[in-house]
Amino acid sequence: MTETRFDVVGTGNAIVDVLGHASDSFLDVNDLVKGAMTLVDAETSERIYGRMGPAVECSGGSGANTIAALALLGGRGAFIGKVRDDQLGAVFGHDIRASGMHFETPLATDGPPTARCLIFVTPDAHRTMQTYLGACVNLTPEDIDEDVIAEAKVTYMEGYLWDPPQAKEAFRKAARIAAGAGRLVSLSLSDPFCVDRHREDFLDLIDNHVDVLFANEDEIVSLYQAADFDDALQQVRGHCKIAALTRSEKGAVIVAGDEVHVLDAEPVERVVDTTGAGDAYAAGFLWGLTRDLDLATCGRLGAVVAAEIIGHMGARPDIPLRQLVNDRLG
Amino acid sequence: MTETRFDVVGTGNAIVDVLGHASDSFLDVNDLVKGAMTLVDAETSERIYGRMGPAVECSGGSGANTIAALALLGGRGAFIGKVRDDQLGAVFGHDIRASGMHFETPLATDGPPTARCLIFVTPDAHRTMQTYLGACVNLTPEDIDEDVIAEAKVTYMEGYLWDPPQAKEAFRKAARIAAGAGRLVSLSLSDPFCVDRHREDFLDLIDNHVDVLFANEDEIVSLYQAADFDDALQQVRGHCKIAALTRSEKGAVIVAGDEVHVLDAEPVERVVDTTGAGDAYAAGFLWGLTRDLDLATCGRLGAVVAAEIIGHMGARPDIPLRQLVNDRLG
Repeated sequence: MTETRFDVVGTGNAIVDVLGHASDSFLDVNDLVKGAMTLVDAETSERIYGRMGPAVECSGGSGANTIAALALLGGRGAFIGKVRDDQLGAVFGHDIRASGMHFETPLATDGPPTARCLIFVTPDAHRTMQTYLGACVNLTPEDIDEDVIAEAKVTYMEGYLWDPPQAKEAFRKAARIAAGAGRLVSLSLSDPFCVDRHREDFLDLIDNHVDVLFANEDEIVSLYQAADFDDALQQVRGHCKIAALTRSEKGAVIVAGDEVHVLDAEPVERVVDTTGAGDAYAAGFLWGLTRDLDLATCGRLGAVVAAEIIGHMGARPDIPLRQLVNDRLG
Repeated sequence: MTETRFDVVGTGNAIVDVLGHASDSFLDVNDLVKGAMTLVDAETSERIYGRMGPAVECSGGSGANTIAALALLGGRGAFIGKVRDDQLGAVFGHDIRASGMHFETPLATDGPPTARCLIFVTPDAHRTMQTYLGACVNLTPEDIDEDVIAEAKVTYMEGYLWDPPQAKEAFRKAARIAAGAGRLVSLSLSDPFCVDRHREDFLDLIDNHVDVLFANEDEIVSLYQAADFDDALQQVRGHCKIAALTRSEKGAVIVAGDEVHVLDAEPVERVVDTTGAGDAYAAGFLWGLTRDLDLATCGRLGAVVAAEIIGHMGARPDIPLRQLVNDRLG
């Protein structure tokens, strides 16, 4: 690809994660849908937080996690997302810049506080999320920095961005600018429930705007309301340039026109917390793609970075990723 | 000991930790004193935070860590400390209550924000801390809840409490109430630099108020400006009922009048971050002591809990401690 100022600019909900351990019975008692990301209002978020055990706070947000991991790989990333001028907003801004990312979206100076996502990690290492979108609802098309989009090889969006009402307009604007500048547009489907909420929009986006699609098995099956994974695989072929379909321990399938790779998962010593696995996969894949590596290598790099993330609590990397990938590339 | 409402009430600085990895050269370039806790003003804290890499936020504070671990062991704990009515104050209050502790100190409604401690963990797993005391400077004797102190078997204080100007008066009040109610008073020396700042006060406290003293080798040597550990050991004997002196991988020595135990350290698979090791040791020890276990067992329990804490990032337990201790007690 042509050299640009940024490899990837991500757009997404700017969220501080509040991570804690919980039992399956805690999920049941509190009517939390295991494995899902559920949107909640401020009051519900406060009520559930009051019942949550001791927690730690980490910057999160699906798209921001991807860009953070990409930056730690040595990629040049930028992020567009909305926080408020409060303490958690300062934490989010610090972490994203400290990871080496460009982040200049203006802070909200009034309205709801910085978004938070309560993340309950059960003993099986699965995560269940309750998101209060807070200041994210104030991301508008005006927050899309045209220069940043035009100067990034890939404009990447999380599907969750379809939840706050004005953010989808912001993304459509970004997609138009990217296409106009001859750049790639990439979408992650985020969550099967999110796909359920926005199926028609996503199908239209994929047909008309998306070059690189990321989805896990549940999401792609949900999108096409398919009978099984292979059925979904046949349907997605031809609708976007590249689709990277992840299947947890079953590995991943990369489809690009006639090119199809069926890749094994990376070995993981101990799965601690799957939060951010998909975000990390996209980071490794896009790092490779923006370096013009072949698609099978991109897929393997995605798997290496995802394997690192699920070995510890939280969605952001805990070790220098660049070394990890250099080791892998030999 | 007589049954009471609480096993231990802790008094200390109420702090949110901001934990990140750093290299030794980062410490050098930023003039950070490795291994020490340095007090900084708001401006310095902001400046260093701006240079710090991506971080995670966890409730901390030495005394609060001890009470949190004690509560997770199944002990009945209370904490007295000052935060502001801001987002980080809410995080601190949530975590301490979610650990099962009583925490009713009134929030500051004006003045500096909730305290934060920037913690830099170097590759050798040592931690270097920069503390901005923020709202902690507003802890006053009025915040000492007489009923809580009188109803706790042990009143525990961190030495760091000698740093904010009015907090030492709060602790002296608590010590008087505890002694009047026939309870034990316990002090942790916190840090050799803290001992340097307050040596005369600490010597006086130990002579006149402290029943159970916790100190590591550097701290006890600093307190008595002793030639070596054994010299310090000889000096502390007779100045308080019980002294628990920890020596990292060399184990610990417990002295109580003529009774002396020399205990080995617990094996640790991999030391990740020593933040909170001393706090955790005190929790295990006091849990045993308030259950009338013999001093050697108290010392071993301290070591077991400390070994758990140093195996992961952060100062608060990551696994159910009660099971850990039950396994150990057989």
